Amino acid sequence: MKKIKKALISISNKENIYLLLKYLTKFKIQLISSGGTYKEIKKLGFKCLEISKYTGSPEILGGRVKTLHPKIHAGILSKRNNKSHQKDLIKNNFEKIDLVIVNFYPFEKTLESTNNHNKIIENIDVGGPTMVRAAAKNYKDVTVIIKPKQYNELIKELNHNNGSTSLDFRQKMSEEAFNETAYYDALISNYFNKKSKNLFPQKKIIIGNLIEKLRYGENPHQEAAIYSKSIKLNIKQLHGKQLSYNNYNDIFSALIISKSLPKNTGTVIVKHTNPCGVSINKNNLKSYKLALDCDPISAFGGIVSCNFKINKKLAIELNKLFLEVVIGNGIENEALKVLKKKKNLRVIDANHLKLNNLQNIVSNFGSILLQSSDTNTFSPKDFKVVSKKKPNFKTLKNLIFAFNICRFVKSNAIVLIKKDSTVGIGSGQSSRLDSCKIAINKMRQFQKKNDSDEIFAASDAFFPFVDGIEKLVQVGVTAVIQPSGSIRDKEIIRFANQTGTILVFSKTRHFKH
Amino acid sequence: MKKIKKALISISNKENIYLLLKYLTKFKIQLISSGGTYKEIKKLGFKCLEISKYTGSPEILGGRVKTLHPKIHAGILSKRNNKSHQKDLIKNNFEKIDLVIVNFYPFEKTLESTNNHNKIIENIDVGGPTMVRAAAKNYKDVTVIIKPKQYNELIKELNHNNGSTSLDFRQKMSEEAFNETAYYDALISNYFNKKSKNLFPQKKIIIGNLIEKLRYGENPHQEAAIYSKSIKLNIKQLHGKQLSYNNYNDIFSALIISKSLPKNTGTVIVKHTNPCGVSINKNNLKSYKLALDCDPISAFGGIVSCNFKINKKLAIELNKLFLEVVIGNGIENEALKVLKKKKNLRVIDANHLKLNNLQNIVSNFGSILLQSSDTNTFSPKDFKVVSKKKPNFKTLKNLIFAFNICRFVKSNAIVLIKKDSTVGIGSGQSSRLDSCKIAINKMRQFQKKNDSDEIFAASDAFFPFVDGIEKLVQVGVTAVIQPSGSIRDKEIIRFANQTGTILVFSKTRHFKH
Repeated sequence: MKKIKKALISISNKENIYLLLKYLTKFKIQLISSGGTYKEIKKLGFKCLEISKYTGSPEILGGRVKTLHPKIHAGILSKRNNKSHQKDLIKNNFEKIDLVIVNFYPFEKTLESTNNHNKIIENIDVGGPTMVRAAAKNYKDVTVIIKPKQYNELIKELNHNNGSTSLDFRQKMSEEAFNETAYYDALISNYFNKKSKNLFPQKKIIIGNLIEKLRYGENPHQEAAIYSKSIKLNIKQLHGKQLSYNNYNDIFSALIISKSLPKNTGTVIVKHTNPCGVSINKNNLKSYKLALDCDPISAFGGIVSCNFKINKKLAIELNKLFLEVVIGNGIENEALKVLKKKKNLRVIDANHLKLNNLQNIVSNFGSILLQSSDTNTFSPKDFKVVSKKKPNFKTLKNLIFAFNICRFVKSNAIVLIKKDSTVGIGSGQSSRLDSCKIAINKMRQFQKKNDSDEIFAASDAFFPFVDGIEKLVQVGVTAVIQPSGSIRDKEIIRFANQTGTILVFSKTRHFKH
Repeated sequence: MKKIKKALISISNKENIYLLLKYLTKFKIQLISSGGTYKEIKKLGFKCLEISKYTGSPEILGGRVKTLHPKIHAGILSKRNNKSHQKDLIKNNFEKIDLVIVNFYPFEKTLESTNNHNKIIENIDVGGPTMVRAAAKNYKDVTVIIKPKQYNELIKELNHNNGSTSLDFRQKMSEEAFNETAYYDALISNYFNKKSKNLFPQKKIIIGNLIEKLRYGENPHQEAAIYSKSIKLNIKQLHGKQLSYNNYNDIFSALIISKSLPKNTGTVIVKHTNPCGVSINKNNLKSYKLALDCDPISAFGGIVSCNFKINKKLAIELNKLFLEVVIGNGIENEALKVLKKKKNLRVIDANHLKLNNLQNIVSNFGSILLQSSDTNTFSPKDFKVVSKKKPNFKTLKNLIFAFNICRFVKSNAIVLIKKDSTVGIGSGQSSRLDSCKIAINKMRQFQKKNDSDEIFAASDAFFPFVDGIEKLVQVGVTAVIQPSGSIRDKEIIRFANQTGTILVFSKTRHFKH
């Protein structure tokens, strides 16, 4: 237990300090402060000594230097049970400071509110982190408080211990303080890296704000949590049970596809992070129904993501199926009412989520693999028709649609399309031929046999042999899109020409493992 | 351009300073220093002013407080083009400090070398980071150097500009300085979190040391790099082309399986992060051959990982197949010579890698999903025999082997085993029945038909219907292991009893998406 006699307060966030000051005064704790905090304390009617009077050193450089003084830092850093430290204090006429209440210049808020580099730099706090780091280092003797949220904890602790704090409490506050200083400098570091377009600095600092601890991970015996690089996630849960790890994983897998589809037309159904049905249609209800038709069995217990606002009609249709999550770019009120009839169904509004420059992280065994995400937008220029038979505009559009979905399917990926809707998706195989077979089997299982629509196919990487594309053509595929690069490309072009198949090569390959 | 007149040096790492001091002196830069650095500079024969003399304030608390002084920090933080700042300096008789050369107490090294908490805490530097942060903030006027590796850059810069530094240089150094302070506090923060077993703090700071920038990511149009949470990766490349993103991803996928197998017996072949053959056998050559037999076509261009030391005999055998990577728990010299005949083959020694308490990270869309890894070791107690027919020891061992592999296969996963070797792996399907069919087809494709070995099967999650297990039994599977939890569990047990199949339930499910 350490009795608190002297506290230093320097806060940029002045929230909720009245009650705190009341308690500090109640326990006869002497206050030292400066600048705006000092004025606020006086205004609220409490006694307080100005730091410049305390140190005998003026506040200079417009406030840049006020607390960086040996009297302050010896007061914080001295070990109470170290005789030599205590002698040093007496000799220099320094006093112990037992409590440091500091929060930093709002660097993060500044980043969010301005692009003005000078203003951003001015908001790098130097004095604050120094006091906090000193106090946190010396937590065996000193209590450090870094945010208004902790005031109540401090008041409780002081009340409970009659003006003292326990070692446990001080250690917990110290831990939170170092979390904060690390986070603060990570923001600055990331800001500089971004400014100089340094994607891969020698030391990479990835920060996360805890969104929630999850019930468990991919499996019940794994512990898990979800964090956001920003202060919050840009999706909003409007209804339903707590999201699980697998829900989140599926939601982001679904959204990366949804956000890549033409606006206000697309429905994606995801199961185990793989799409099992995708469709684009200006009629939203049709869009959903066609996506579902691709594999209605896999859709059971899946996630439906619409890149349009969900209306009542669609909500009624969605309720007919057991789903884990429904995602919309907004949900109409009447639709939400309908969806809420299902108590457990999680309903998500993803209207504010944007497909920005993203970096993916995969970490195993203490390694961290970082890469820019594969979300570039395709344009017809990225593709080259290599067959004699040329695609018309509609065919090319369908091929690009198919190819775009393909890159979000686990490799090796084959996607079969009819009129803006998937009809067969083959995923997760080491043999491309196997993926073809899986896609074809899905199509056979769920599509009407005598339907005359053309079938288009996409492959995420080149066909190494003719066998894969041959299988596709045998079941009626009339146009194929794929990256080039096989030593058998010519053979494959020849096969396409022999069978009157349209063949388009893309410039880019799209593995997703 | 800023002429450097005064430099403050405070370094815990004294490497390579002679040349640096020579150049600083050449450009008539005044040196201020303290403690060990001061002594070292004097010993090397250079002029230097002690900080305590410079500030007029003694070094106290055994060195805890020496540079935390307004004369130092005003000297660093004053804006040269701000008249009021310059007036403040003159009024207080302070001088400008143009160059700060500081490195921190070796917190990371201390962590690696001791568990002594007090010693670790003592190695939290307070003064150093404060000077570095102040100088880095004021980089428009001040140069900051944080590690010996930068000395040559500084010397070059001073030579090139006749004792001055350019804004570009100062900004680059400032960026590196903030990377370093963020990294430093992240280490402290993570240490405290670990000590208090706080797996998921409010603010999570993940750090990475750049191992190498990669040629590209999963695909050539994606930028990528590999980092390590420690200073280095615990695998060593002994031969071959630069590892690619996909190589690394496959290597870690292979190693997590290898390290989970009984020591010195296991071979794993991985393609696209999924195993396509696994075997355990005390005869290492057999172990590899049996793993290969599971799917010799998929193994082409794959990764072979052995959890034993690779000998010459095996190396000769490995060279018969086109492989991207060969991994061993050590490679015998003679074996390495053989493998080196393949110029491009990447050879990895993973002997030092350990399967510790690991946390996995997956990040998409600015979200970060953290979870503890699914690498608990199984024991027979984790399983319950629910069929009338009971497994003997060998059968149970095979079932646990199958179940262990199953959890490293992308869901839904079905693994078929004969005598300690996989013979069919079905992965990446949203329907469990489809995964059964894929595994069965692989077995039919590559296994001898009249072989009398028993077939065992594992499923990573429960069978939702009888149909999946039925398919397996139809092709000769005699024992099945799976998690329980389906509403049709009883029906499935009944089916097992009717067909004389051994059925074992596990306590844990093992999704891997």
